[in-house]
Amino acid sequence: MSKNVLGELIGILGKENVLTEKEDLINYSYDATADMPSRMPEVVVTPSTKEQIIDIVKLASKNKVSIVTRGSGTNLSGGTIPVNGGIVLSMLRFDKIVEVDPANLTATVQPGLVIQRLNESVAEHGLIYPPDPGTVATATMGGSVSECSGGLRGLKYGVTKDYIMGLEVVMPDGEVIRTGGKTVKNVSGYDLTKLFTGAEGTLGIITEIIVKLIPAPKYRRSMLAVFDDLDKAGKTIADIISNKVIPATLEIMDNVTIRTVENYSRIGLPVDAEAVLVIEVDGSIEEVVLREFETVKAICAENGAVSTKIAESDTERDAIFAARRAALPALAQVKPTTVLEDATVPRSKIPDMLKALKGIAEKYNLQIGTFGHAGDGNLHPTILTDESNTDEMERVHKAVDEIFDVAIKLGGTLSGEHGIGMAKSKYMELEFGKTGVGVMMKIKEALDPDNIMNPGKIFRRDAL
Amino acid sequence: MSKNVLGELIGILGKENVLTEKEDLINYSYDATADMPSRMPEVVVTPSTKEQIIDIVKLASKNKVSIVTRGSGTNLSGGTIPVNGGIVLSMLRFDKIVEVDPANLTATVQPGLVIQRLNESVAEHGLIYPPDPGTVATATMGGSVSECSGGLRGLKYGVTKDYIMGLEVVMPDGEVIRTGGKTVKNVSGYDLTKLFTGAEGTLGIITEIIVKLIPAPKYRRSMLAVFDDLDKAGKTIADIISNKVIPATLEIMDNVTIRTVENYSRIGLPVDAEAVLVIEVDGSIEEVVLREFETVKAICAENGAVSTKIAESDTERDAIFAARRAALPALAQVKPTTVLEDATVPRSKIPDMLKALKGIAEKYNLQIGTFGHAGDGNLHPTILTDESNTDEMERVHKAVDEIFDVAIKLGGTLSGEHGIGMAKSKYMELEFGKTGVGVMMKIKEALDPDNIMNPGKIFRRDAL
Repeated sequence: MSKNVLGELIGILGKENVLTEKEDLINYSYDATADMPSRMPEVVVTPSTKEQIIDIVKLASKNKVSIVTRGSGTNLSGGTIPVNGGIVLSMLRFDKIVEVDPANLTATVQPGLVIQRLNESVAEHGLIYPPDPGTVATATMGGSVSECSGGLRGLKYGVTKDYIMGLEVVMPDGEVIRTGGKTVKNVSGYDLTKLFTGAEGTLGIITEIIVKLIPAPKYRRSMLAVFDDLDKAGKTIADIISNKVIPATLEIMDNVTIRTVENYSRIGLPVDAEAVLVIEVDGSIEEVVLREFETVKAICAENGAVSTKIAESDTERDAIFAARRAALPALAQVKPTTVLEDATVPRSKIPDMLKALKGIAEKYNLQIGTFGHAGDGNLHPTILTDESNTDEMERVHKAVDEIFDVAIKLGGTLSGEHGIGMAKSKYMELEFGKTGVGVMMKIKEALDPDNIMNPGKIFRRDAL
Repeated sequence: MSKNVLGELIGILGKENVLTEKEDLINYSYDATADMPSRMPEVVVTPSTKEQIIDIVKLASKNKVSIVTRGSGTNLSGGTIPVNGGIVLSMLRFDKIVEVDPANLTATVQPGLVIQRLNESVAEHGLIYPPDPGTVATATMGGSVSECSGGLRGLKYGVTKDYIMGLEVVMPDGEVIRTGGKTVKNVSGYDLTKLFTGAEGTLGIITEIIVKLIPAPKYRRSMLAVFDDLDKAGKTIADIISNKVIPATLEIMDNVTIRTVENYSRIGLPVDAEAVLVIEVDGSIEEVVLREFETVKAICAENGAVSTKIAESDTERDAIFAARRAALPALAQVKPTTVLEDATVPRSKIPDMLKALKGIAEKYNLQIGTFGHAGDGNLHPTILTDESNTDEMERVHKAVDEIFDVAIKLGGTLSGEHGIGMAKSKYMELEFGKTGVGVMMKIKEALDPDNIMNPGKIFRRDAL
């Protein structure tokens, strides 16, 4: 990057908002994704107004410098690594809730807002913003929209894109557009709101977000069910849905995960179980919630659950959820490197996918713990390994290839909620073919012809 | 169109599937939209296989002939008028349900399938496909996806795009892509499924559709509430939502509509009322539905409803809904021409919009009846006029301009559920600015560089 560009950035933002020291830059050279190359940006900028962002983008566009927009860096597909150097644009100063509008069940927020703060703020109106990725307490709304996060409530409540009603976006040429709005129905022109949601920052910089809110469910009932057979757990999942009960949470952990969590936190999980399901039903009417819960309990029993643990209090409920939430940190303790995937299959294929994962672990002699959102088919096979072990990493990469191959063959997708980023760009043709990827690339090239917005993501770095 | 092209079409499809006689073509020269120019296509083709469609598209692409894909022609924004002549491609032979998959709550259908047939077919599994445009008994799935239809259940159940999980599309160069799939979570690359949903056939030809189904609600309670003041009706709508009741149906008819419907069908509507609301709550548990209904009744009473009519039986329920469904046919009887709009505003702005519409009717000395989906802000101001009355039509066009101006100023959109088509393309910059429309045009040009797919729609005919 030329001295001139740096000088102009300082002119736009002031010296204190333009970082160029190595010890500052290094924090922006990686994100939460394992087994990824890191790369230092040339400069990190922290704008606080939209006008500054417009000026930065125009400057970058003129000089063909790349911009990686960044929230909290919790990305799990290498999406926030500035692989071409250039500018990292931190949105952390855009952290305001612009408006909560209970009459229209919407909120308008800035992209640097941490997701949980939105929920804290709308709670006083009896409302919630349902998407709840695991990183809800640290991840920002902008990152969450750009990656289209999912979380534990996807089955019943959907994912981020189901709640994004409108956006303000600074385009790669510095022009500003507004998409969507506060109306539930909107079919004016192409749905740009949905196009930018999940675009991983490759098409522009989101500067404002209108989200849909829903009435908070008032009641919930939770349980943990233990199975000695993967098929029985799989059939339980299928039977719950076919009985027309849509749980808010329907999570699974396999034997490797159960053992690891128990070893990590000693909470009394059954270490010989092949699978446990964590199930929560919720709703606004207590009788309904209780009735649905009875249905779930009966289905677990019919399918031969070895035991069930019903949460009789909030404390017991929190303990069950803590076990599920411990899955990733527990697995991450076992070995130096944790390769976390999010291959996703149609719900009915969960048992097939779990069996395939077991086979892949054996074939490549790897430790794979699998947990995830069984209700929506979004599994997190997690390979426990060591980046410094070249031989093992080779097997890891082969196993990952095979995981995606199986997921696609089962009618699934490369990513349920983590995005493609750098981690999965090489598999894109597996899912969409050359033509499908080509259509996406045409859109990218039409809107960002100089490829300055988060280059090297979604598409292979050499592709654009 | 050259004789060669026609000859090749016959070669692909057989003579019996290639219509060129004037008396055949004329049926494809217009759709259900009033006050639109009609234009005859040069040929109408009715393919029955995907391979034929690919061949037709490749032929059209090579010869730069335009293709207008057509279902049942119920379009309400001039979207199916072949304004450049060329080929009308009828999808009516693609009318199969490929698969119903209750385990994954999905169905896979061909685009020529009539919407109602899908619902008849999934009913045996206790499932529904919620989007229900007024034309549910005649409109096709393909048209409905391309226009992103709404209907009477938008507030609680959302619109078409909320139920489209995956598509197969023949692109303008004849290549085939598949988008999305059967997984609830899917964030692999740009969301092409949502891009094609509502694209009005301007980006490609949809050849297969995967839809999401939901458990059918088992119970419902319905009523009609009468108000002598628009504000009271508006406040009732707002209070229902803020009491966390989300009705399946929450419809409004204004005084002009009430009088016209009563005059048309003599069903005992109160002709002096300023507004009536038709409200239905539904759900899977009877107590919940009853409880929500009591809340709705209490809110109507608190807000000074002059009277309420509770449906005590299915027959009485059907009578109430028949009154609402009579709105458009009744209004259409009054004058030779019915200009039906679907300007949409945030729910809280409904009273403002209704007052503005009253003002516009007075200002331009026009008869405007307004009815629509109050719960989701989607109103149908309907101007009763006569195309042959040049002076009045001039006032109609000015009134329409002003309706959209007000809708946008109130934070609304040009179209809630009918699409832009030809009817509203000239207003697009009002909502999106030059830049926003420019972004959409870049996408169109990138994917359909020769502008052969439904040209002259969404964008002004001279714009591309």
